[in-house]
Amino acid sequence: MQERYQAVRGHSERLAAPLSAEDQAIQSMPDASPTKWHLAHTTWFYETFLLGRFEPGYKVCNPDYAFLFNSYYEAAGPRHARPARGMITRPSVAEVIAYRRHVYAAMLRLLGRDVPPDLRFLVELGLHHEQQHQELLVTDVLHALAQNPLKPACDPGWRPPLPIGGEARMLDGPSGLVEIGTPAETPFYFDNEGPRHRVWLDPYRIASRPVTNGEWLRFIEAGGYAQPLLWMSDGWAARYAEDWQAPLHWQQDRDGRWMQFSPAGLAPLDPDASVRHICWYEADAFARWAGKRLPTEAEWEAAAATLPLDAVADDVWQWTESAYRPYPGYRPWAGLVGEYNGKFMINTMVLRGGSVATPPGHARLGYRNFFHPDKRWQFTGLRLAENAR
Amino acid sequence: MQERYQAVRGHSERLAAPLSAEDQAIQSMPDASPTKWHLAHTTWFYETFLLGRFEPGYKVCNPDYAFLFNSYYEAAGPRHARPARGMITRPSVAEVIAYRRHVYAAMLRLLGRDVPPDLRFLVELGLHHEQQHQELLVTDVLHALAQNPLKPACDPGWRPPLPIGGEARMLDGPSGLVEIGTPAETPFYFDNEGPRHRVWLDPYRIASRPVTNGEWLRFIEAGGYAQPLLWMSDGWAARYAEDWQAPLHWQQDRDGRWMQFSPAGLAPLDPDASVRHICWYEADAFARWAGKRLPTEAEWEAAAATLPLDAVADDVWQWTESAYRPYPGYRPWAGLVGEYNGKFMINTMVLRGGSVATPPGHARLGYRNFFHPDKRWQFTGLRLAENAR
Amino acid sequence: MQERYQAVRGHSERLAAPLSAEDQAIQSMPDASPTKWHLAHTTWFYETFLLGRFEPGYKVCNPDYAFLFNSYYEAAGPRHARPARGMITRPSVAEVIAYRRHVYAAMLRLLGRDVPPDLRFLVELGLHHEQQHQELLVTDVLHALAQNPLKPACDPGWRPPLPIGGEARMLDGPSGLVEIGTPAETPFYFDNEGPRHRVWLDPYRIASRPVTNGEWLRFIEAGGYAQPLLWMSDGWAARYAEDWQAPLHWQQDRDGRWMQFSPAGLAPLDPDASVRHICWYEADAFARWAGKRLPTEAEWEAAAATLPLDAVADDVWQWTESAYRPYPGYRPWAGLVGEYNGKFMINTMVLRGGSVATPPGHARLGYRNFFHPDKRWQFTGLRLAENAR
Amino acid sequence: MQERYQAVRGHSERLAAPLSAEDQAIQSMPDASPTKWHLAHTTWFYETFLLGRFEPGYKVCNPDYAFLFNSYYEAAGPRHARPARGMITRPSVAEVIAYRRHVYAAMLRLLGRDVPPDLRFLVELGLHHEQQHQELLVTDVLHALAQNPLKPACDPGWRPPLPIGGEARMLDGPSGLVEIGTPAETPFYFDNEGPRHRVWLDPYRIASRPVTNGEWLRFIEAGGYAQPLLWMSDGWAARYAEDWQAPLHWQQDRDGRWMQFSPAGLAPLDPDASVRHICWYEADAFARWAGKRLPTEAEWEAAAATLPLDAVADDVWQWTESAYRPYPGYRPWAGLVGEYNGKFMINTMVLRGGSVATPPGHARLGYRNFFHPDKRWQFTGLRLAENAR
Repeated sequence: MQERYQAVRGHSERLAAPLSAEDQAIQSMPDASPTKWHLAHTTWFYETFLLGRFEPGYKVCNPDYAFLFNSYYEAAGPRHARPARGMITRPSVAEVIAYRRHVYAAMLRLLGRDVPPDLRFLVELGLHHEQQHQELLVTDVLHALAQNPLKPACDPGWRPPLPIGGEARMLDGPSGLVEIGTPAETPFYFDNEGPRHRVWLDPYRIASRPVTNGEWLRFIEAGGYAQPLLWMSDGWAARYAEDWQAPLHWQQDRDGRWMQFSPAGLAPLDPDASVRHICWYEADAFARWAGKRLPTEAEWEAAAATLPLDAVADDVWQWTESAYRPYPGYRPWAGLVGEYNGKFMINTMVLRGGSVATPPGHARLGYRNFFHPDKRWQFTGLRLAENAR
Repeated sequence: MQERYQAVRGHSERLAAPLSAEDQAIQSMPDASPTKWHLAHTTWFYETFLLGRFEPGYKVCNPDYAFLFNSYYEAAGPRHARPARGMITRPSVAEVIAYRRHVYAAMLRLLGRDVPPDLRFLVELGLHHEQQHQELLVTDVLHALAQNPLKPACDPGWRPPLPIGGEARMLDGPSGLVEIGTPAETPFYFDNEGPRHRVWLDPYRIASRPVTNGEWLRFIEAGGYAQPLLWMSDGWAARYAEDWQAPLHWQQDRDGRWMQFSPAGLAPLDPDASVRHICWYEADAFARWAGKRLPTEAEWEAAAATLPLDAVADDVWQWTESAYRPYPGYRPWAGLVGEYNGKFMINTMVLRGGSVATPPGHARLGYRNFFHPDKRWQFTGLRLAENAR
Repeated sequence: MQERYQAVRGHSERLAAPLSAEDQAIQSMPDASPTKWHLAHTTWFYETFLLGRFEPGYKVCNPDYAFLFNSYYEAAGPRHARPARGMITRPSVAEVIAYRRHVYAAMLRLLGRDVPPDLRFLVELGLHHEQQHQELLVTDVLHALAQNPLKPACDPGWRPPLPIGGEARMLDGPSGLVEIGTPAETPFYFDNEGPRHRVWLDPYRIASRPVTNGEWLRFIEAGGYAQPLLWMSDGWAARYAEDWQAPLHWQQDRDGRWMQFSPAGLAPLDPDASVRHICWYEADAFARWAGKRLPTEAEWEAAAATLPLDAVADDVWQWTESAYRPYPGYRPWAGLVGEYNGKFMINTMVLRGGSVATPPGHARLGYRNFFHPDKRWQFTGLRLAENAR
Repeated sequence: MQERYQAVRGHSERLAAPLSAEDQAIQSMPDASPTKWHLAHTTWFYETFLLGRFEPGYKVCNPDYAFLFNSYYEAAGPRHARPARGMITRPSVAEVIAYRRHVYAAMLRLLGRDVPPDLRFLVELGLHHEQQHQELLVTDVLHALAQNPLKPACDPGWRPPLPIGGEARMLDGPSGLVEIGTPAETPFYFDNEGPRHRVWLDPYRIASRPVTNGEWLRFIEAGGYAQPLLWMSDGWAARYAEDWQAPLHWQQDRDGRWMQFSPAGLAPLDPDASVRHICWYEADAFARWAGKRLPTEAEWEAAAATLPLDAVADDVWQWTESAYRPYPGYRPWAGLVGEYNGKFMINTMVLRGGSVATPPGHARLGYRNFFHPDKRWQFTGLRLAENAR
């Protein structure tokens, strides 16, 4: 477990390495957080839920950090306002790194001893939590640097996912009474993935791969962003208010050529790559335009478990038709970590799969990602489905 | 059908009768509409979807009304901005009544002939549509007059629903593979109620009656509005932003006694009556505090079809755990009325049952009402449920 | 004094006569008030500052009206929120008229006796106050009906001011050490008009008449609304935020012809009439474009006292270069009416003259009208000036 | 001139020296700018108005900087949105320093030659411009670090102004026909300070020193922030909206002791020091409470020229009763720098004197500083005045 701890912690720091102190300090919108905050908050998580409670004699690095780096845990005390995270210039990046080292050392000591299962669970949770923030770190800093008219690259060495290519095929998925939800014997999973339960599915087909940029260009050219009848009412209002004309991070150069801003900087749009940085409203409108629909999360999970789908987990998160609500029999984790997932089960839509920014080994078939339907700054795309009869 | 047409139309006018011209003109928030607008919009519906298309030689009452009284039908042309409906002082109430008479006479002529089934459907839809606006008329004007510090009664003769009384019992509902959705042979139902389809339900229990004001007072006294851990994250943010301390239309008099504003005016709160004017966030927090949960809409429908539940359809609408999304195989109606329901199937939660303000004969067991989870101005309450296991 | 009281009171009611109950109830923006509110507030003024204090045995018409119809007098107690005045459907127009009658009768009784000077002053103030609201009533209802896409006429019999015609001449005004301010012996004047005091004026010239619509059209055609260098920084921000392209109440018909909405309804723009419904920012930008400037209020007053200027007081209010600040030695009136003028002497600019909507006999040479520099709904225009040197 | 250039440029860099890269990057409100932006913008000023136009062969450091670092010069081309200055993480602090060096070297070459008077004026303007930004740099970073709940010191070595001590005396100022405005023969002054002109002043008295913190505490204790009758109407609305209870940067510790946040960090409030970080609304309310008033700018200037006033120019800026408007005969500078002052002459109030943060040698007796009346983040205080008769 020490080794895994070292590996996950090191990955966060590698993600921050190409960024300057200024890059790591700013917050470009209330949904996003500074890189530095992600580095500190994930550290606070171990300090608060593990070291502070189970490590006798542990001394907190700085008593003010509990206020600054608690995200949303009401039970863990008051905290700095989320939209003001970009106002915290001190502690500096260097002090945050020192904070990480302090907690790292204490955690290695703790892990060097015989760790009982409840603590092992919390360590594992801390690591999965840190992996979630690793993905957010990438998308948040991408959003932040996109505000700069110079469009600087966050990480010149970043590599986009490989395009699948070819036509999408519509495959028959398993139907009837199926079971979904991560099996209880899985070593680690989030509370929102269970309990495993039965769902009735009518026959359907699902696409072998996500929708591509090239297909999305046809939607744009067909007036997809100008036709209210394709959109949900709330979606059209959002499109209008924010003047969406294309996915986030797309722009046209002087010759009308489409460019895409990625962590590697601005580059010509690859028509064969999966479309990303679209919100649920856009995904839903596209599907309607295409004469299809989004899959439900149960369809997605049942199909992904049995069919030869491409780009399941390392390309783009895939919006589903399902609102993010508790599974039948859902119970939040006991104790302080009970706030982790349950309180967000409203107004959000489920995404399945995983993206190029999801750390390897993090997601599962039963993994439920979720965002409000107007959010576009994640690596989010879509896979089409349709009724079979 | 002429008789039914007369009855429904007359009911709208009876609802408006106790209101002054000023009462009928104002709009107290973007969600609400002036009484006068409801009277005109329901009239426009027949004119646009029936008379203008199927009655040869029909002359519109006033060509400007199509712009003023279209609500949200993109396919029916441009329209006046919803939040500005209260700015329309002319046509006057008297002119709107004249508009109603004009359309009424033409409709009676149309209905006096042999009406083919597709037109019969549109007439029936127009009547159900008008009934929906009858309920909105009552809740909208209640909200409007509530803005007046004098708290004038909208309709001094209005009668509240009768309290059920007694303790609620938790009853076992039908489970396993059940069917829900309004059966296709039902003479009229909204597109969102079908198709009838199978759903798997784990065992559960459901309360014999809705939650009462007295039970809600205990929630308040127990600090229900002060404890973030009971609330969804978005719900707590809304509670905080709008400073909710009690249901809408409740206020304390100088002696701390709770009063409730209803169409009949301000009166002492009846502890045995069903609680109403709560939003989904409040219903959900209450259920969590009570150690229970809201029923899903499938549970509600299956239970209401078989169990002796009280106050199913004439007291308060009952929030469910279900997001308002299309049923499997859902298809919007063809043609212009296709915008009726489908485009609102996001960010809203399903309510089941019916309220004291729902016109008799309007709702059905399979009826799906829906509002955003922060809306409180309808006659909305809750019925508890729990897992049976 | 009884006769004058009757005349002024009657004029308010004549202004409201062409308006429906709905017209009189709505409020189209926080700056404006419903007609009905003006009728009631001016009545409350006599009740509060005269009858309630000096008429033994006077019974208030309705104790709730003090809350509803106090405008901004902190010392007179709490009051209904200004932006919510349009939410008051009751008392009805008829009840407001009854309120007026109640106070009218009591005032006539009071005026029928021997009235000491301090009371005479308050009566006179009440009448001037009511005249100010008469002008606001006209501009507020014009703004309200302008929200209606049907552009109904407020008062079909309304007559615009007569155009002056001809070229404007630039006239030399009195300079050196001059005196301005309404002389203390004037029977009635507002506290803000005094004390009379000395001001040093460098030589200047002032236009014989206000700027016309025709001249404003040339400003539009020359790109006046598109050239930031002509505008104050705050003015350009306002122009941009509200997308001003022409004065308020101007619109182009399908053929590009300019129309103007007035109390008499929509009619072709008269190029010879004085431009109106422009804010200070627009007046200032126009003057800069024309190579001139606005007069200071001292220049305006000194010139108007001695030169043969046209359209001084019955056409449009004329923006000046002067911020509305207290004169040297200014003291607000003693007592409750001390809040009348003084607390608005910041962020506002002085207008001089009077408009077509100003009741005859209301304004004086020394009269100081004032509005924030972005306000456009009054009958506001401009007269140019320049340095003579 | 080379020497002076070096001195002023060096002072900017010394001010930034105690700040981290993160401190220099953030923007805490639209009124404020990042330190890094101040360092770059003052550099852009020389590049744009001098080197680019008068230095043959000059190569701009980076063509993107003109867009990023233009503040508000419409005539100098498009620019980055002011409220988004904190989103610019790149160029980094180090790159901005390199930009400064690039321009510095070019400027020294230019100054090493024979400089004609028009260029000398622009150099001098650039230096005064940079000095203005030096003061803003201090106040902006103070505001930024004040957002941090840890209240870190911007500059631990910062020294507050020395308290004057003793009672304020009310001194008779020069009255009658006086002259104000910076004399035309002054080597450098801003266009808004002239032309020198005559003003008539009635007799008045002016305080020998600014109001102190101790005096302000008495205003607080007397309920000054709770009494609307002391405030301008717009001021009371602002006080209420922003919940002002004390000057900016004041806070009470757990024992109720008043602390003040300064560039040196949080320290007990010195009752003998001049009050600072108050807006015009507060200054005006205080003066009314004290039975006095603010001086006009003409009174201030005439008095400061002749009387032995304390703390004229090195303690706090002093709000005056005067709106910031052009002097009679004012003409903006010709050319691109014409936008420097004139377009802000609305909605702002004049401050006179100078503050502890004003670079030595920058201000003059005739210097006109100005801010909107609700701004509190500058070193702003007040000096009382009163009518002499």
